[in-house]
Amino acid sequence: MTASTPPVAIIMGSRSDWPTMKLAAERLDQLGVAWEAKVVSAHRTPQRLYDFATTAKAKGFKVVIAGAGGAAHLPGMAASMTDLPVLGVPVQSKALKGLDSLLSIVQMPGGVPVATLAIGEAGAANAGILAAQILALSDPALAERLSAFRAAQTDSVAETVED
Amino acid sequence: MTASTPPVAIIMGSRSDWPTMKLAAERLDQLGVAWEAKVVSAHRTPQRLYDFATTAKAKGFKVVIAGAGGAAHLPGMAASMTDLPVLGVPVQSKALKGLDSLLSIVQMPGGVPVATLAIGEAGAANAGILAAQILALSDPALAERLSAFRAAQTDSVAETVED
Amino acid sequence: MTASTPPVAIIMGSRSDWPTMKLAAERLDQLGVAWEAKVVSAHRTPQRLYDFATTAKAKGFKVVIAGAGGAAHLPGMAASMTDLPVLGVPVQSKALKGLDSLLSIVQMPGGVPVATLAIGEAGAANAGILAAQILALSDPALAERLSAFRAAQTDSVAETVED
Amino acid sequence: MTASTPPVAIIMGSRSDWPTMKLAAERLDQLGVAWEAKVVSAHRTPQRLYDFATTAKAKGFKVVIAGAGGAAHLPGMAASMTDLPVLGVPVQSKALKGLDSLLSIVQMPGGVPVATLAIGEAGAANAGILAAQILALSDPALAERLSAFRAAQTDSVAETVED
Amino acid sequence: MTASTPPVAIIMGSRSDWPTMKLAAERLDQLGVAWEAKVVSAHRTPQRLYDFATTAKAKGFKVVIAGAGGAAHLPGMAASMTDLPVLGVPVQSKALKGLDSLLSIVQMPGGVPVATLAIGEAGAANAGILAAQILALSDPALAERLSAFRAAQTDSVAETVED
Amino acid sequence: MTASTPPVAIIMGSRSDWPTMKLAAERLDQLGVAWEAKVVSAHRTPQRLYDFATTAKAKGFKVVIAGAGGAAHLPGMAASMTDLPVLGVPVQSKALKGLDSLLSIVQMPGGVPVATLAIGEAGAANAGILAAQILALSDPALAERLSAFRAAQTDSVAETVED
Amino acid sequence: MTASTPPVAIIMGSRSDWPTMKLAAERLDQLGVAWEAKVVSAHRTPQRLYDFATTAKAKGFKVVIAGAGGAAHLPGMAASMTDLPVLGVPVQSKALKGLDSLLSIVQMPGGVPVATLAIGEAGAANAGILAAQILALSDPALAERLSAFRAAQTDSVAETVED
Amino acid sequence: MTASTPPVAIIMGSRSDWPTMKLAAERLDQLGVAWEAKVVSAHRTPQRLYDFATTAKAKGFKVVIAGAGGAAHLPGMAASMTDLPVLGVPVQSKALKGLDSLLSIVQMPGGVPVATLAIGEAGAANAGILAAQILALSDPALAERLSAFRAAQTDSVAETVED
Repeated sequence: MTASTPPVAIIMGSRSDWPTMKLAAERLDQLGVAWEAKVVSAHRTPQRLYDFATTAKAKGFKVVIAGAGGAAHLPGMAASMTDLPVLGVPVQSKALKGLDSLLSIVQMPGGVPVATLAIGEAGAANAGILAAQILALSDPALAERLSAFRAAQTDSVAETVED
Repeated sequence: MTASTPPVAIIMGSRSDWPTMKLAAERLDQLGVAWEAKVVSAHRTPQRLYDFATTAKAKGFKVVIAGAGGAAHLPGMAASMTDLPVLGVPVQSKALKGLDSLLSIVQMPGGVPVATLAIGEAGAANAGILAAQILALSDPALAERLSAFRAAQTDSVAETVED
Repeated sequence: MTASTPPVAIIMGSRSDWPTMKLAAERLDQLGVAWEAKVVSAHRTPQRLYDFATTAKAKGFKVVIAGAGGAAHLPGMAASMTDLPVLGVPVQSKALKGLDSLLSIVQMPGGVPVATLAIGEAGAANAGILAAQILALSDPALAERLSAFRAAQTDSVAETVED
Repeated sequence: MTASTPPVAIIMGSRSDWPTMKLAAERLDQLGVAWEAKVVSAHRTPQRLYDFATTAKAKGFKVVIAGAGGAAHLPGMAASMTDLPVLGVPVQSKALKGLDSLLSIVQMPGGVPVATLAIGEAGAANAGILAAQILALSDPALAERLSAFRAAQTDSVAETVED
Repeated sequence: MTASTPPVAIIMGSRSDWPTMKLAAERLDQLGVAWEAKVVSAHRTPQRLYDFATTAKAKGFKVVIAGAGGAAHLPGMAASMTDLPVLGVPVQSKALKGLDSLLSIVQMPGGVPVATLAIGEAGAANAGILAAQILALSDPALAERLSAFRAAQTDSVAETVED
Repeated sequence: MTASTPPVAIIMGSRSDWPTMKLAAERLDQLGVAWEAKVVSAHRTPQRLYDFATTAKAKGFKVVIAGAGGAAHLPGMAASMTDLPVLGVPVQSKALKGLDSLLSIVQMPGGVPVATLAIGEAGAANAGILAAQILALSDPALAERLSAFRAAQTDSVAETVED
Repeated sequence: MTASTPPVAIIMGSRSDWPTMKLAAERLDQLGVAWEAKVVSAHRTPQRLYDFATTAKAKGFKVVIAGAGGAAHLPGMAASMTDLPVLGVPVQSKALKGLDSLLSIVQMPGGVPVATLAIGEAGAANAGILAAQILALSDPALAERLSAFRAAQTDSVAETVED
Repeated sequence: MTASTPPVAIIMGSRSDWPTMKLAAERLDQLGVAWEAKVVSAHRTPQRLYDFATTAKAKGFKVVIAGAGGAAHLPGMAASMTDLPVLGVPVQSKALKGLDSLLSIVQMPGGVPVATLAIGEAGAANAGILAAQILALSDPALAERLSAFRAAQTDSVAETVED
């Protein structure tokens, strides 16, 4: 473990997933949780995936957020090679609108869980929040910030349907 | 928080979900994690849900596993009333085979995550394992047991296709 | 019951649902039925939902129209906390085009009905009309207006395919 | 209107739908609401449907419950010929498991609502309860029975997952 | 039967279906088959549908082409009230892209067939051709024109992928 | 054309489709329409398909009923090689329950129609009736039998839901 | 076999499929594999399909890539008439986004395989690569080029999510 | 490469896939192609997958057949680590009947193809045949056997629908 490893790793199958996945990063920023993001393609860079997943825990990461679309194997394969919680974000695909991404991520066999979030930006944002919820279990200060974040979120929902 | 609160709460929408959800309990037992299970119907006992979810954190629970089928609102509504990580298990439904359960649980809006697992028994078993993975982040002994569990799982996969 | 409570409450999960849900309001206006609309997010404002649903009947509302998208829990949760008829409108979602909204609303378990309408604007408009049909059972003047509305609708369907 | 017309008519496309639709009748019986059931096939007896729907209101019915499967046109066509609220129950079909029934019933165009319930027995049961909720708006004694029914339902949900 | 009744009636649920349905008319024009088109809404003008369908055969129509979208009841209800062949065209719907239209039209119960074509413009064009194929069985001159049409269609398919 | 060619050919992709497709034959028998059935596999006997389809019209067939399951190419390929009306029956498949059969048959491109019926036995029965409706356009005696058949069908629908 | 026949034939149902299918050609060009492309419509030019498929092997083709959309019969029918490997590309369709194309191509019955790729451009590109992988089994120079192509592909995946 | 390596490797995610996957082996046996089968779980034995896939080509395998169900990552991950053609068989899953398996296998991104076959036994059988078709391109004796196999298959299709 190095001192500089942030608690959350955000990996994604393609640079084109970043516009979706950066929502996770933004929520982590809002909650004061450090993160590191990189492109790890399960299919085009399997060795990079292997290297990342088998060393993630030793490096000091606590939670892995993995986003991918189509035949989305990245979250499940990462989960197969680490004991860390892996949060999977189905990125919206062109033809099937993310239904393929969702089923490829969520339908894991017994033994290797992937915590799957909603398709697209809402799912990415929620992956950031969920990572914080997990880390907050052993970080009282983060738990406070999370409560405040949730409270502010509640307060921001105006009752009126129009301005 | 009471001394006797186990770290994991398993809630489900109906007693008929228990044959599925007990897989979560079995995995937690295997991993040495205490749990408590009860029926909380989002639709038939909304007050019980409200009472459970708004007090779960204060009582000392760390992770909530929630299973439901059809218009499965239990995981999402529990998540709306607690900062604890909520793991959702889509129970297989009669007509639509759990596709309705899955979409009702996973497609949460930005702001309130539910960590969704696979439809049915595999998903329930994985909810138990995922809960342990989350708790293991701050429990080195559990982390050891989890690693051993995963290693044993790997070892149990015989290469031969027939005996 | 207060003198000022209109018979129909229109609630929705987000202000962004209003462009859809206002179709319900427009039909109620056309039929001379008063309504009140507000944003009640099942997930971000669960207490507001609890407060609304548990008091709706005592306040004098007769029918609740609830619209939501994605993992659309608002109609079903409102229905769990009131004896009033709840009409659910699946708002079209981005990735899955409202199929998730529809299944999350309509697939309610036995015991707690939600009267579900079509996905999107047609469903919202029909929620307004259905609310009027329900109220008209004990309001002969409204029943007259409703018959006239339906007759005018029939008359407005020109036979010719082009002008 | 004749003195003997019960408030609820239950119609269905085929006698084979009765095992599903009788759940509606059972709930109405439990709630003390009279009903009348008959087979009206939109496709095989269109004149019977026409006669039923165009006279239902004048005969004194208040609510129509219509169940059908596959290309389920009965609820929508009944709704096209009466101002009464029509509650549609998608009966589970053989090949597509009721998804065809559901879409055929719920996706009504703007102007003619059908209050759609869940696929199969849960939906039929809920149609009975919803009919009672509608009638209870102008029948205080029924409203009392309905509240008691809902309270008993809540009380019947045991917390324990096993006996 | 009047001398002026063309052999093919084209009906559709809404004037907005005409941009799709006119493809049927165009093919009939190309094949020298007369047609008549009008808007007949199953839901908004059920009496017009009843009048049309019960008299279509006596008026001298031979084939009915019916297009509709969403909960598309027009083709099946027309088929329930005439012995003429009814060809159904699922018009592409907004949210579900015509899957609802298709299932509502094609999944007819045993006893009342609707000859269903593809979703959208291809289906409408093919309804025109199919009507001609049916009429050509007893019209040798039309059979000749149809053969020529098909041959020309075959000839028009250039082998080269680019000009 | 030979004197002995019946007007209707029933072809199917596999002998295992006959339990479904014989419903078509039974309806034709009831309506007094002669038929001939044989197995023609688009994939395993393409030459047989080619020979059948290119000669069907010359042999004197009037209508082709074609049933197939899965990637069901038989109806569309038959339609590509004959000007006769081709009625397609999607046979229920094992995994996808006939949804694959239906889409493979109905989604024909503009230019080559297949008149598609419902999935499974109802569709096969309706293919028989539709074939008779088409033939009845130029066979008054058949038209009479068809009307009687439809009337008897209507009469057979008892109103009572139980004996 | 003629000296000039390239190893790969690319056929497609319509010239409008070329913008998708040319991705296959581009990959083959990159890998130094010759190809020939033409439009062969299963439905509009069945004789051309028959002529192509029954002679493809004798002419010296080694692999057939076939793309089609909707009721996509071209790959399966080509496969029924040749022993060569047939690679099927589901072209994205308008209404159902290629789900119909995919199921029509992949769900082949036992006995006649079609090697199916992803919907749309990714599938077309992969058909080109797969053809090269197949040919490389007996062409060491191509195997070298393929390895280099794959290595370059791996190297091209930058780790950083933004420039 | 060792002398004893058979040309075809059959791998599968679980021993429970063998009843499906043995159809591939049976077809290879019929065609005189040697094979080797073993269980390689992408999720439970990722190192075994890594070892298998990165050495398969060097060991002398020519074609890899990979079957898996649910979130079926085995075929795609094998394909990411070898230049050999990988044939993917979607094993029928419990809840979603193999639709999840199919989409997880077929929707591969551009760059890494998986030749996908039908869901279940038909797909497994066809994977065996397709492997033989690929190998036959450079094995004239196998090409002969394959032609004979296909011819026998054609001959075995009796025309009569009943014995």
